[in-house]
Amino acid sequence: MSGNTTGTIFKVTTWGESHGKSTGVVVDGCPPNIPLNESDIQRELDRRRPGQHTSSSPRKEEDIAEILSGTFEGKTTGTPISIVIRNSDVRSGDYDQIKDLFRPGHGDFTYFKKYGIRDYRGGGRASGRETAARVAAGAIAKKIIVREGIETIAYTLELGSVRVENLSMNDIGNNRLLCPDMKAAELMERRLEEAGERGDSLGGIVEIIVKGCPPGLGEPVFDKIDADMAKALMSIGTVKGVGIGAGFKAARMPGSKCNDPITPEGFATNNAGGIIAGITNGEDIVMKVACKPIASIEKPQQSVDIHGNSTTLTVTGRHDVSVIPRIIPVCEAMVSMVLADHLLRQKAIS
Amino acid sequence: MSGNTTGTIFKVTTWGESHGKSTGVVVDGCPPNIPLNESDIQRELDRRRPGQHTSSSPRKEEDIAEILSGTFEGKTTGTPISIVIRNSDVRSGDYDQIKDLFRPGHGDFTYFKKYGIRDYRGGGRASGRETAARVAAGAIAKKIIVREGIETIAYTLELGSVRVENLSMNDIGNNRLLCPDMKAAELMERRLEEAGERGDSLGGIVEIIVKGCPPGLGEPVFDKIDADMAKALMSIGTVKGVGIGAGFKAARMPGSKCNDPITPEGFATNNAGGIIAGITNGEDIVMKVACKPIASIEKPQQSVDIHGNSTTLTVTGRHDVSVIPRIIPVCEAMVSMVLADHLLRQKAIS
Amino acid sequence: MSGNTTGTIFKVTTWGESHGKSTGVVVDGCPPNIPLNESDIQRELDRRRPGQHTSSSPRKEEDIAEILSGTFEGKTTGTPISIVIRNSDVRSGDYDQIKDLFRPGHGDFTYFKKYGIRDYRGGGRASGRETAARVAAGAIAKKIIVREGIETIAYTLELGSVRVENLSMNDIGNNRLLCPDMKAAELMERRLEEAGERGDSLGGIVEIIVKGCPPGLGEPVFDKIDADMAKALMSIGTVKGVGIGAGFKAARMPGSKCNDPITPEGFATNNAGGIIAGITNGEDIVMKVACKPIASIEKPQQSVDIHGNSTTLTVTGRHDVSVIPRIIPVCEAMVSMVLADHLLRQKAIS
Amino acid sequence: MSGNTTGTIFKVTTWGESHGKSTGVVVDGCPPNIPLNESDIQRELDRRRPGQHTSSSPRKEEDIAEILSGTFEGKTTGTPISIVIRNSDVRSGDYDQIKDLFRPGHGDFTYFKKYGIRDYRGGGRASGRETAARVAAGAIAKKIIVREGIETIAYTLELGSVRVENLSMNDIGNNRLLCPDMKAAELMERRLEEAGERGDSLGGIVEIIVKGCPPGLGEPVFDKIDADMAKALMSIGTVKGVGIGAGFKAARMPGSKCNDPITPEGFATNNAGGIIAGITNGEDIVMKVACKPIASIEKPQQSVDIHGNSTTLTVTGRHDVSVIPRIIPVCEAMVSMVLADHLLRQKAIS
Repeated sequence: MSGNTTGTIFKVTTWGESHGKSTGVVVDGCPPNIPLNESDIQRELDRRRPGQHTSSSPRKEEDIAEILSGTFEGKTTGTPISIVIRNSDVRSGDYDQIKDLFRPGHGDFTYFKKYGIRDYRGGGRASGRETAARVAAGAIAKKIIVREGIETIAYTLELGSVRVENLSMNDIGNNRLLCPDMKAAELMERRLEEAGERGDSLGGIVEIIVKGCPPGLGEPVFDKIDADMAKALMSIGTVKGVGIGAGFKAARMPGSKCNDPITPEGFATNNAGGIIAGITNGEDIVMKVACKPIASIEKPQQSVDIHGNSTTLTVTGRHDVSVIPRIIPVCEAMVSMVLADHLLRQKAIS
Repeated sequence: MSGNTTGTIFKVTTWGESHGKSTGVVVDGCPPNIPLNESDIQRELDRRRPGQHTSSSPRKEEDIAEILSGTFEGKTTGTPISIVIRNSDVRSGDYDQIKDLFRPGHGDFTYFKKYGIRDYRGGGRASGRETAARVAAGAIAKKIIVREGIETIAYTLELGSVRVENLSMNDIGNNRLLCPDMKAAELMERRLEEAGERGDSLGGIVEIIVKGCPPGLGEPVFDKIDADMAKALMSIGTVKGVGIGAGFKAARMPGSKCNDPITPEGFATNNAGGIIAGITNGEDIVMKVACKPIASIEKPQQSVDIHGNSTTLTVTGRHDVSVIPRIIPVCEAMVSMVLADHLLRQKAIS
Repeated sequence: MSGNTTGTIFKVTTWGESHGKSTGVVVDGCPPNIPLNESDIQRELDRRRPGQHTSSSPRKEEDIAEILSGTFEGKTTGTPISIVIRNSDVRSGDYDQIKDLFRPGHGDFTYFKKYGIRDYRGGGRASGRETAARVAAGAIAKKIIVREGIETIAYTLELGSVRVENLSMNDIGNNRLLCPDMKAAELMERRLEEAGERGDSLGGIVEIIVKGCPPGLGEPVFDKIDADMAKALMSIGTVKGVGIGAGFKAARMPGSKCNDPITPEGFATNNAGGIIAGITNGEDIVMKVACKPIASIEKPQQSVDIHGNSTTLTVTGRHDVSVIPRIIPVCEAMVSMVLADHLLRQKAIS
Repeated sequence: MSGNTTGTIFKVTTWGESHGKSTGVVVDGCPPNIPLNESDIQRELDRRRPGQHTSSSPRKEEDIAEILSGTFEGKTTGTPISIVIRNSDVRSGDYDQIKDLFRPGHGDFTYFKKYGIRDYRGGGRASGRETAARVAAGAIAKKIIVREGIETIAYTLELGSVRVENLSMNDIGNNRLLCPDMKAAELMERRLEEAGERGDSLGGIVEIIVKGCPPGLGEPVFDKIDADMAKALMSIGTVKGVGIGAGFKAARMPGSKCNDPITPEGFATNNAGGIIAGITNGEDIVMKVACKPIASIEKPQQSVDIHGNSTTLTVTGRHDVSVIPRIIPVCEAMVSMVLADHLLRQKAIS
């Protein structure tokens, strides 16, 4: 039942299957008079595009965004912005073999149970391809938050059990894994290579930082901004865990350590991750998401077909070894949407 | 802006401040003809009531639920169910001293920044007392899910860094911490005692299991059931992290380990935590939430007053040492609401 | 399914049955720092109270509004405002006789068909008493729109086929029917008296004028402000028709007459009723609603019981002869809610 | 702020400007396994297409619907259905002359006041062209309601002050005005011709009948089905009045006449128009909408430019003389959407 729209004022509706004609998004509630061109969308889409580097899927989607409505002479008009992204490199034939099979870790089984029908080509709606539409919407959201001096930065904190040790934000752009530790990045690459050779895949942790966010965003008690962030991030297919600020570490702290002291200059520490009682406090918003390994692996796996018969299954085709780094612009997009929505929500009552 | 309603069909709206006249909830969208009495609500409320045991707040709220509408002759009528819970033990005077201060870890600062006004008595809307209304709504949600054979169980997995080692579900009811490991429970109690003596507080981890949930619940791509669970749980004041199934551990698994093999008898493992691609798969739903330590501690803390002047602050009054175990029925309530809502959502399209 | 909440930012949820313990409303999304006391609510409630004049129901509800949350020291805090109105004069016994009967024109039949259960006491949720909660919420909405210089005026345009001939706005307060034509008011009173003596009831038309509304309110294409007004007004039990500006008369005009010419000083005419393309144009908003006669009449009527057996039915008890004038503050309340919501919606994107 | 989505379960989002690249719609919440092809959409679109007959706009849009997602092998999959309708016959140059003018009766003035920017080409988002997307969504809604034996019929009741006298439903298809009275139809045609020659336009009344609707649909107290119908119909640009059942005539009836007697065989009359207390009663749903004359007329009109200077304006270009009959499939579409949504809402709680 209609779960493809998110946001209350800045409202995003995505649509599209992996191997259908196209995917796309309608953004309703964007304020008027914001400069917006297709290149603004394209820049973000290019960041999640497959086929950019060795360890990612060799599928060659061009991922060209076309704006069909909602702008006039290079500016938003306040009417819904419709963006379509054509699926140009569709080889549905690849998927005939899995037509009657449930791939472990994939939505095949649950979509079939839910709807009694499924578009089995490339995962259909459950495909990672759906995130292209999110990134397009996120590009518009960024336009709104940037006006207020808000910036989002996301990077690889961990991949294949390799964790960043010496955080150097300047290095994020210096390696294709968007990792702020060049040495860790190198190790991560090695792990990816090894896993690929084994026909396996890897998971990791992405950290997202929001800088410049004013205090006061968030709508208790249910639409707290951390609650909305958790929903937005957990709605990404690959995410199995979300932490705000100290996250799970907060569970092991005493109050005297976890409470961030307040000084005339601001908060002395940031265990809260920039959010107290569901409202931003003006400090950096800090979030971690745990990404599971990609479900599609070449290693043989035990499964059943749609008739319930046992089978052994090998997923071939064009697949990434890890959702990292391609998931990173998706995380940024989701976070930007939540921020844009809450900025507008706060404006309504101020 | 209006963030106090949650759910799309089973719609819950809470209201009330810690030291106002009362708190309460309106539940709209409950199906008709479900037997419901005040005792059904009361039973759940009693589980989160303060003053039941040594380490929890000695405030003596009776927490009596009164149903004002929506039932007739002991059954729901399909119209909104309004429940009010009177605040009987209100001593606002206790809070005069913090009127102009921002308590670290509390919503004082952010509420003031957001609204430009705050009800400082006991945390106002940001008080844990608000969760009483959630528990009342959860009691109604449970009525709906129990009809379908669904059961929620929540327990203490970790407290003050003491973790359950030998899980014995039968023991949950045998200790006041609702811990499925009697030995761990004993250790946890000792930690609570020590922390209380130090004027400090402790955090912990609650695990929630949903048994008997049919496959097919969840509405991709934004209202995936794990996304809605994450939002619901993160909206509880104390929660800083949510994990589904393997949670953050999934980030360190290879795909060959993380993917749950499918057999004719069901899934061989449950790293997915009962949810794949945002839809339940029929296995147990398994979730963990990280609870930060209670913000109110007697230890002196550094803070500022509303004029920005530095101050040292000691929070006296009636406070728990840990949100555990009182948070446990709240987690169950939130999970039950999400399940009830998604059950009804799925009915709409089947 | 959960149809008791309206508004997107200024969100109103009502609850309560005619003869339950009380009725009430939760208003979420009200901006903070607006002065609000129970007397503000009471003043509006007093305007729709029964028992004020001969032709209206002799039931003596005190209709005392109590604010349970959302205000602090006489000001709104931005948190949900919960208002409860106790039902003090409940004589459910009156209704035992209609327990198994469907009264013509009443919701008895449809509620039973929909829910399979109904609270037959006084119409339950379908009772006009439900509008008390709307009026309470409307009182808060008025606080918001008055700040912006917006004023709503509603009056009797027609009653029992007697129509206002010489509109004299100053006279609205000079007769209990709130009719801007003293002579028409007198005739209307006579018609009410006659109808009452016959054991019958009468319908009429209410006109609502909004003065001082700025241009720019309304959210095309579905949430046009006239669309939202139509919904809000049609949701009042008694309303069977809504017209904006020229309304049904517009259907008989040529374009050269219906189009309002625009001059440097504003619009030359106002057939649009202040709304073009779903957005306010700065002129007075003019709306008419057709109210059907009250369903409860003493005249014998043909009906069936819940087993489908034919019966003749006489509705005794305490009933008004016409919903006019008591419906008038209800119309104002609904219109005020829509205005408040759209004002805040417009703020969000400006 | 985001008013382009309607419906709670059957959720429709439209987008597109008159002279942009295309218009379109996303339908989310459609149940799976419903047969759906482009021809189902096309059939409805063809009914509202311009250029079919003399009195309507000679603009030659092909209005070809393309389904981009949400179906698989000719059936809905439960995922969002995206439909795009290319704008093939766009001559924006026609509109350069009105770039800086506000056309009376058009949204030019109000869009400019609201957004501070407007796409002046052909009315932009306020153009009647937007209704093509509604008709496409309505085609899907019809698929849902037809399954339950529900049928919608809409026809011309009045045009240019000519009213149907002898209703003959069989004749609706026998004249291009969809009028159930051949003689009236002839007269109407003459009025259209005359008005066209005068450079003027005409309004009229459309009646919509819903047959086969089960009792029990509608969600009091705010989402009553008549309230939702009123909103849906009033959201059509041309509509200035909505009546349910007896409509405005109900205001002149006594209760003894207006109440529909109930017999063991059903209701004896249908003044309620099939809806009591906001819930369907199983009788035909009967609704009337008043359509204002088309705003674009060749006759010179008084107006101002965006700088506030007085001007006289003549609207040339390709315009219909009346929205009737092209508005008729739009009315049916809106009614079908409301029915589909309420059918699914009722299923959720039954």
